[in-house]
This record gives sequence, structure tokens and C-alpha cells, in this order.
Amino acid sequence: MGRTEVPPGTAKAVRVAAGDLIRVIDVEGGQVGDVFAFTDSGTDLAEHHSAAHTRAATDRLFPAVGEAFVTDRRRPILTLAEDTSPGEHDMLIPACDPARYAALGAPGHRSCATNLREALSELGLGFTGPAPQPINVFMRIPVGADGRLSWLTATSRPGDAVTLRAELDCVVVVSACPQDLVRISDAGLSPLAIETVHNGGTRS
Amino acid sequence: MGRTEVPPGTAKAVRVAAGDLIRVIDVEGGQVGDVFAFTDSGTDLAEHHSAAHTRAATDRLFPAVGEAFVTDRRRPILTLAEDTSPGEHDMLIPACDPARYAALGAPGHRSCATNLREALSELGLGFTGPAPQPINVFMRIPVGADGRLSWLTATSRPGDAVTLRAELDCVVVVSACPQDLVRISDAGLSPLAIETVHNGGTRS
Repeated sequence: MGRTEVPPGTAKAVRVAAGDLIRVIDVEGGQVGDVFAFTDSGTDLAEHHSAAHTRAATDRLFPAVGEAFVTDRRRPILTLAEDTSPGEHDMLIPACDPARYAALGAPGHRSCATNLREALSELGLGFTGPAPQPINVFMRIPVGADGRLSWLTATSRPGDAVTLRAELDCVVVVSACPQDLVRISDAGLSPLAIETVHNGGTRS
Repeated sequence: MGRTEVPPGTAKAVRVAAGDLIRVIDVEGGQVGDVFAFTDSGTDLAEHHSAAHTRAATDRLFPAVGEAFVTDRRRPILTLAEDTSPGEHDMLIPACDPARYAALGAPGHRSCATNLREALSELGLGFTGPAPQPINVFMRIPVGADGRLSWLTATSRPGDAVTLRAELDCVVVVSACPQDLVRISDAGLSPLAIETVHNGGTRS
């Protein structure tokens, strides 16, 4: 088992093998995390988790325990194995990015899209495409009967966690979302942590 | 004004200038269309309509008249100017692709993802990235109170049309969806048509 701290507003990447567990922990509570997953065939990050393909596979807007997240090639890459949080996670909203903060009057602000590239770069992996749409753990974007989205503040408690099982060898990136201009995270930015549990694959 | 016929199960691409109108017509009714849009800077298709970024901009699941579709760089690229159809259009489901049909037991079936590449290729444009998530005109994917998606059959009538206004010089691809194994289109596959109205830009 390994533990990786994700300081507030930054991201970390971990490599896991099929069968391994990845636990994303909201250390202090109320912190949104953007989770990205890429199949790992060495240096090729061409295949990644796709929110749209996952919706078509599960016929749901949002993740549910026991269901798989699939890639843009429709292969299961992660399964939501366990969830100790209130269970609200978003899969409608893209990662925050430089354009988002420029529009909010804060050019140069940290973003999950740039965090993604930094975290992959720390593993020696380059990624030049647009940031895939993430799984936004602990993020609350309820949908009204009229199809209207609301942006609410995370209600996850200290220590709440989602546990993902890798279905393929993959690289998982977790960004402790730096968004502090729209109150999706509670009471300022706080850290996340990633725990990986080696479960019979070839890596730890 | 120009008119481009889109034979059943195929796609066509058109280049338009900012200010031009693009009308997507359901010629016989009940036919889903996948609409893709890329900013046009010659040969660079790096920026494209993004369903996720559009949701974050409009705070809606589905398109509404008067609202803009934005790119993955959060720039308005198209606006839904007019809609004579019943008004249901999907922005949750990805383009059908070879993996989708392989899973349905029909490997090699035509798909909107391959149609996209073919249509761009006819304009001399190459595109190697994953197919962006399209605007699925006339496609009915209502969402239940529990977040469950339903796949219903298109109810658009012969001649129903959506009119899009280009906000940037762009390449718009319209695929008359070849999906005939899941009944999203009514009564077999039928054609679409694209009408472009030159509206003061530099192209027609």
C-alpha cells in the first residue's frame, strides 16, 4: 500500500495495475477532486476515461457504486468499488482551465487542466491533447427537472473516500481542485490523498 | 445559400464564416444527426465544440434557442438561432463508433465517428484525435429524477430544422447517424440536409 499526498490546488499521478485499488481521500472534507485515468501502455496516453462514453454505458448521469467508468474506446478502466462520502460526484463539468480563470478575472490562476499536465510530466509522461472530462469526486452538480444545473458546495466530511478498482493497467491523476472563485469546495482549498492497494497485479 | 445533401448513414462537412447560418434539416423526419464543429484556421482543427464546456457555460444539460455552444477553449463557436423541431436534442451521448457496433455484434458497421473523419477528409482536413462529443440533433435522451437516461426515438417531423449561427469561422460536420440497431431514429435511416446562408462573412 502506498500513500501520496496531494497538496491543496495541485495534482499527483499514480501508476496502477489492473486489480489494484485507488482510494481518493478528502483529508479535511469539502474538497472537490478531479480524477483522470489513462490506459498505460508505456508512454502512450491515447486512451482515457471518457465521461460521455461512460454515460452511454451506464445510462446514468453520475457514478454509482459497482459501476464501471469506460474509456473513449468503450473499455472499462475503473470501477467505483466503494464510497464512504455522501455519494455525490459530478461527471458533467469539464476541468477548470486557464480560459475559465481568465473569464473569472484571474488569469494565471492554477487549474486542474494544467495540474493534469504537470502531474503526468512528473512521471515522465507527456500529454498534448485537450484535458479529458474528469470524474469530479465530491463535486455537487445536481440537475433540476428542467435540465438546469446547480453548482453547490461539497459536503464530503474529513476522511471521506471513494475507492476505485483499476480494470486495466492505468495512470490515474488526482487534482485537488484549485477553484476558489466559485464555491464548489468548502472553506478554502484543502489537500486530498491517494492510497493505492496492490491487489495481485504486477505493480504496486 | 448552398444546400448539401447528407445521404442516409453518411456525413458531410461545410466551411462557414462567422455570421453565416447553418441549417440542419431532417428531410423525412425521425432522423438523428450528429453535429461537430471545429474552428477553422486553415488546416488546424485543434479547437472544437465541447459538450462539457458548453454545459458549464449554459448551466443546462441540453441546448436552448438563443444559447451558444462553446469550444474546449470556452469560446462561443455556434449559437442555436432557431428550432422548428419539437426541441429535443442530446448533448450527453458520444458519437457511435466502431467499438459501439462491435459490442452490438455488428463489427464494421458505419459510425458517426468514422463518418466525421471521412467528411473532413473530403475537405482535405485530417483529424486524428478522438471524436469530440457531438451535438445530437433530434436525439431524445431524457433524464429521470434519479439521473437515469432513457433512449427514445426521434419525433422530429419531415422538414424540421435547427438553425445554427457561426460565431467563428468554422468547419461544421453533420452525420446522418447510421445507428439502426438501437431505435433512436424512426423507421430506418433517412437523409439530412445542410443549408448554409451567407450572412456577411467572407465565405459562402
